[in-house]
Amino acid sequence: MTRALAITVSTRAAAGTRTDLSGAALVAGLRAFDFEVDGPLVVADGEPVDAALRAGIQQGYDLIISTGGTGISPTDATPEITTRLIERLLPGIPEALRADGVKRGIPTALLSRGVAGTAGQTLIINLPGSPGAVRDALEVLAPILGHAVDQLSGADHQGADQP
Amino acid sequence: MTRALAITVSTRAAAGTRTDLSGAALVAGLRAFDFEVDGPLVVADGEPVDAALRAGIQQGYDLIISTGGTGISPTDATPEITTRLIERLLPGIPEALRADGVKRGIPTALLSRGVAGTAGQTLIINLPGSPGAVRDALEVLAPILGHAVDQLSGADHQGADQP
Amino acid sequence: MTRALAITVSTRAAAGTRTDLSGAALVAGLRAFDFEVDGPLVVADGEPVDAALRAGIQQGYDLIISTGGTGISPTDATPEITTRLIERLLPGIPEALRADGVKRGIPTALLSRGVAGTAGQTLIINLPGSPGAVRDALEVLAPILGHAVDQLSGADHQGADQP
Repeated sequence: MTRALAITVSTRAAAGTRTDLSGAALVAGLRAFDFEVDGPLVVADGEPVDAALRAGIQQGYDLIISTGGTGISPTDATPEITTRLIERLLPGIPEALRADGVKRGIPTALLSRGVAGTAGQTLIINLPGSPGAVRDALEVLAPILGHAVDQLSGADHQGADQP
Repeated sequence: MTRALAITVSTRAAAGTRTDLSGAALVAGLRAFDFEVDGPLVVADGEPVDAALRAGIQQGYDLIISTGGTGISPTDATPEITTRLIERLLPGIPEALRADGVKRGIPTALLSRGVAGTAGQTLIINLPGSPGAVRDALEVLAPILGHAVDQLSGADHQGADQP
Repeated sequence: MTRALAITVSTRAAAGTRTDLSGAALVAGLRAFDFEVDGPLVVADGEPVDAALRAGIQQGYDLIISTGGTGISPTDATPEITTRLIERLLPGIPEALRADGVKRGIPTALLSRGVAGTAGQTLIINLPGSPGAVRDALEVLAPILGHAVDQLSGADHQGADQP
């Protein structure tokens, strides 16, 4: 069973001055995939993201998804912090999420700097910090998360050696 | 009011042996957004791009857009020089521009290596060196430039914390 | 005439325990473009890819295309090894290949980490390791390979200075 960790990155949610709707949407969406989901862990923007991701990697989650901090406001630093911990980037994931946002009529989706990639056998994906963006992203990710987690764990390919 | 600088990168335009149609298209397009526009500054390929970008960042422009030098000819170096000055890359912008070019029936649009990102509170975007590519790109950028400039300056989000 | 080298990256094909269908599809597809094609050179995942690419660059091929090793299995390392040898990345190429795969109903295409770029006057492109992915990719690449090879060799632009 896929073990997933949801992390909300929001200084205001961490301070309790905003309700964490994005994290709730993320946990609900991942549970709908029948994953075993922990979180949302709620952390402030910046270095607290580093500690949360490191702990999740060490605890061996198959999947860590964050929501928030992917824009270009002065405090947005989730992509930089995530990139430091990633061994192999998967540029196709943020690419597909941005393209999907634009197709849905949200042109500012292309300002998301979120990254995705692997750290050991953990797949890490940054999502923007809104419940709508989280729900849209999970629709895009639905057909690939299982395959990605299997590949990461070294499961052998069946038939062709794709991709 | 958004203050923008247009830079034309073309060794031949800088030498006066070619008319700078791309820079003219860029300035006209940015003025149509009601931005206060300086330029086009016309510089040769290579290191002169560095000096022009640095000056623009120091002068505090909200937006610097270059046209030219994004291909793979031996002299094309705009993306490398721009990347050196960028603090936070915005991969979604060149991605969207290339995808738009392909959709318009210009498959070679995918050979553009132009980058986008932020340096301090300045948004920098490389465009290819043709008037048509500039006009097409400004259509893609129209719905996001204002939002990006606002976010960069630290303007607070309204409602949701997207993206 | 464009001189191309095809490289198959597959530990099992290199060991003779799998038929190299991807490499055969790649050579056939490149010959259909009227290129002069060598290969497929068949190498195991990992460092043998480095030696094959270096030899191809030194031999002055206009184009080197690899198939295989672009996923996230523990042994997949083609993108990292290729990136080390590339001087100027062309992110638009893998972007377009992934987007095309998704459009064709293959969502896992977005997990390909293949890169493209230039080393000297050689254009290098990584493709996934399945015959179908190779054939689909060559359709996407058909309208741009000739233009890219010309630009790389420093051929002058006609008319506009695009891109």
